[in-house]
Amino acid sequence: MKLSERVEKMQFSPIRRFNEYALEAERNGKKIYRLNIGQPDVETPECFLEAIKSINLDVIEYAESGGVEDLQQAIIDYFRIYNIYYEKKDIMVTAGGSEALNMLFTTILDPGDEVLIAEPFYTNYHTFIAAANGKVVPVTTSAEEGYHYADVDKLEAAVTDKTKAILITNPGNPTGTILTKDEMQLIIDFAINHDLWIIADEVYREFAYDGRKVYSFGMFEECKNRLIIVDSVSKRFSACGARVGCLVTKNEDVAQGVMKLAQGRLCVATLDQIGAAALYRLDKSYYKEIRTVYEKRRDAVYEEIMKIPGVICKKPGGSFYLMVKLPVDNVENFLMFLLKEYSDNNETVMFSPAGGFYATKGLGRDELRIAYVLNEDSLRRGIQILAGGLKAYKEKED
Amino acid sequence: MKLSERVEKMQFSPIRRFNEYALEAERNGKKIYRLNIGQPDVETPECFLEAIKSINLDVIEYAESGGVEDLQQAIIDYFRIYNIYYEKKDIMVTAGGSEALNMLFTTILDPGDEVLIAEPFYTNYHTFIAAANGKVVPVTTSAEEGYHYADVDKLEAAVTDKTKAILITNPGNPTGTILTKDEMQLIIDFAINHDLWIIADEVYREFAYDGRKVYSFGMFEECKNRLIIVDSVSKRFSACGARVGCLVTKNEDVAQGVMKLAQGRLCVATLDQIGAAALYRLDKSYYKEIRTVYEKRRDAVYEEIMKIPGVICKKPGGSFYLMVKLPVDNVENFLMFLLKEYSDNNETVMFSPAGGFYATKGLGRDELRIAYVLNEDSLRRGIQILAGGLKAYKEKED
Repeated sequence: MKLSERVEKMQFSPIRRFNEYALEAERNGKKIYRLNIGQPDVETPECFLEAIKSINLDVIEYAESGGVEDLQQAIIDYFRIYNIYYEKKDIMVTAGGSEALNMLFTTILDPGDEVLIAEPFYTNYHTFIAAANGKVVPVTTSAEEGYHYADVDKLEAAVTDKTKAILITNPGNPTGTILTKDEMQLIIDFAINHDLWIIADEVYREFAYDGRKVYSFGMFEECKNRLIIVDSVSKRFSACGARVGCLVTKNEDVAQGVMKLAQGRLCVATLDQIGAAALYRLDKSYYKEIRTVYEKRRDAVYEEIMKIPGVICKKPGGSFYLMVKLPVDNVENFLMFLLKEYSDNNETVMFSPAGGFYATKGLGRDELRIAYVLNEDSLRRGIQILAGGLKAYKEKED
Repeated sequence: MKLSERVEKMQFSPIRRFNEYALEAERNGKKIYRLNIGQPDVETPECFLEAIKSINLDVIEYAESGGVEDLQQAIIDYFRIYNIYYEKKDIMVTAGGSEALNMLFTTILDPGDEVLIAEPFYTNYHTFIAAANGKVVPVTTSAEEGYHYADVDKLEAAVTDKTKAILITNPGNPTGTILTKDEMQLIIDFAINHDLWIIADEVYREFAYDGRKVYSFGMFEECKNRLIIVDSVSKRFSACGARVGCLVTKNEDVAQGVMKLAQGRLCVATLDQIGAAALYRLDKSYYKEIRTVYEKRRDAVYEEIMKIPGVICKKPGGSFYLMVKLPVDNVENFLMFLLKEYSDNNETVMFSPAGGFYATKGLGRDELRIAYVLNEDSLRRGIQILAGGLKAYKEKED
């Protein structure tokens, strides 16, 4: 009785893997600034719980497999803000962006099929693609180049006859890299040339800073039939625990294929869909509001990071993550040191080691991801602890 | 740009497939008794919504990937009623029983691996197993024998060197067949002999009639390490839309494998888990109460069914389904007739054609599944319409 090869080869989440050491430290009374996980401290808009609390149902019934109609309509109206036009049949409501990706890869990948992804990338893509017996083919980027990947030569070098799709996270996680309109065009042309699906994970769509315009692959007519957009309420509305997202596509084959899987799992939680509809209906001034909050946070983190001697970090333009290259051999050892040995006034800090964000073995060992999901003061304090911890770690190592 | 072979080969849900014709009929003012889907009309216990409405959280955060601890504890306490002892590490909270099955097959099946299931079976097993590139190997049963499958010869004939697991739905869906303790022992011995996983889908555990004792595979010590139990709040607590279930196992390899997938999808909806904890904590008198309700419904349906000339139907001992063999060539055509042409006082009835519950092609064409999920009067009326419709259909066919 063995497990499947695909699961044997899978990793535990590098983001969640160190949690037990953090919990242990907390049990010992240490305060931890958690910059490791994309769980914002921003309040979920009240309309979410209000919508759910106003529900009076005698029976909590299954919803339709494609989603509650009112939520589908709210999603359609949301995209319309950006002059992107969808219909209900194009919208599959999913349990977060995670389920959208999971169902999508099961729908489009045969065993051995490849998906191009710029590395470092959101580590759970690995899990979803491996679950479908597919293979991640990384397009390697570097801290020094600000994790730039919209480069035809780089993309061409990675494509094979097994390549089925290119997956773009824009704005990026973990890098914060954000594509220009021209770069999006370049990727679309590349995908058309090689007849690839374009999977656009745009859950950080509104997190675009420095006056950047918000773009979506949905704005480009010419890729409409090969485009699948993944969306979610988790980050935009700070509602990670709602587990509501969607898969959006004009491609009817994909929509039908995903529907087969969706009918298998019956539906997404009914109450959360009702709450999510209220979120998608928030006035668009909300996006401006949170953008301002996170832009300040980014600036604070970046300012503190750049005070640390020997780091490499380019100021990212979007999402709420930032990658940093540290002058250490192995950030995992450094993180263990921070959690188990180091303390500054009985406080320490936690981040995500970046090794798990790379598909290429050995890369990312000296890089980490910071999620700037706490208030400015906590962020500054967290990075200052990191700086102090680094000094102590290096002294100990010498 | 093609879809994956696994999804190309998949069927749409035969339970949900006829929904569009039903909706069309309803738009035309026809009332439909929906006996096609396992969506009970029984009120969800108030504690579910009450627990959720009393939540005051500023941020709807991710839950732990394994589940909210309080819910895990409530599940542990629930199993203890039956003298089955689990710990938190054994309980993976999932988005309904569906996700439990989905993650389980991804964890234990390599492409081509086989799972034994008595047919007719819950059609979505097909989807989950195909998603993992596995194969259903059916153990065929018949209406005439009351869908009996606990038969060593039948099981032995189906096993190959690719067989990895036997999946048991007990009490059964769609058959209502319920195993005796001796039959469970027979299946366990068989699984041990062939070194198979035992997957026990026991979501209808409490729906056992005629004074039958409630059994679980969890009560058998000797299969502990090869047993995976799937549970759910959907049916037991009439909370289908909550999408909360769990995968329960003492096998640490499976628990760890499933955890890798669970971390990938992050967590199950936080609020619904809080509601589900209240459900699992209901006094066990609740189970007696609903058992009485459904037993009366079963008796009513069975009584009405047996009035129809030429049917074959054995009174089932559990769950809330009942299979009927009708004297027609193709129940799908009959269902279309009921939805599109027939009406009795502007009312008609809907059921699930059983073809989709069989893996063997051609079987089940003259069988249907009734879900007795409505009140007694509606059920009697529904079956009477079915009887009238059948008479009209046969007259028209002649």
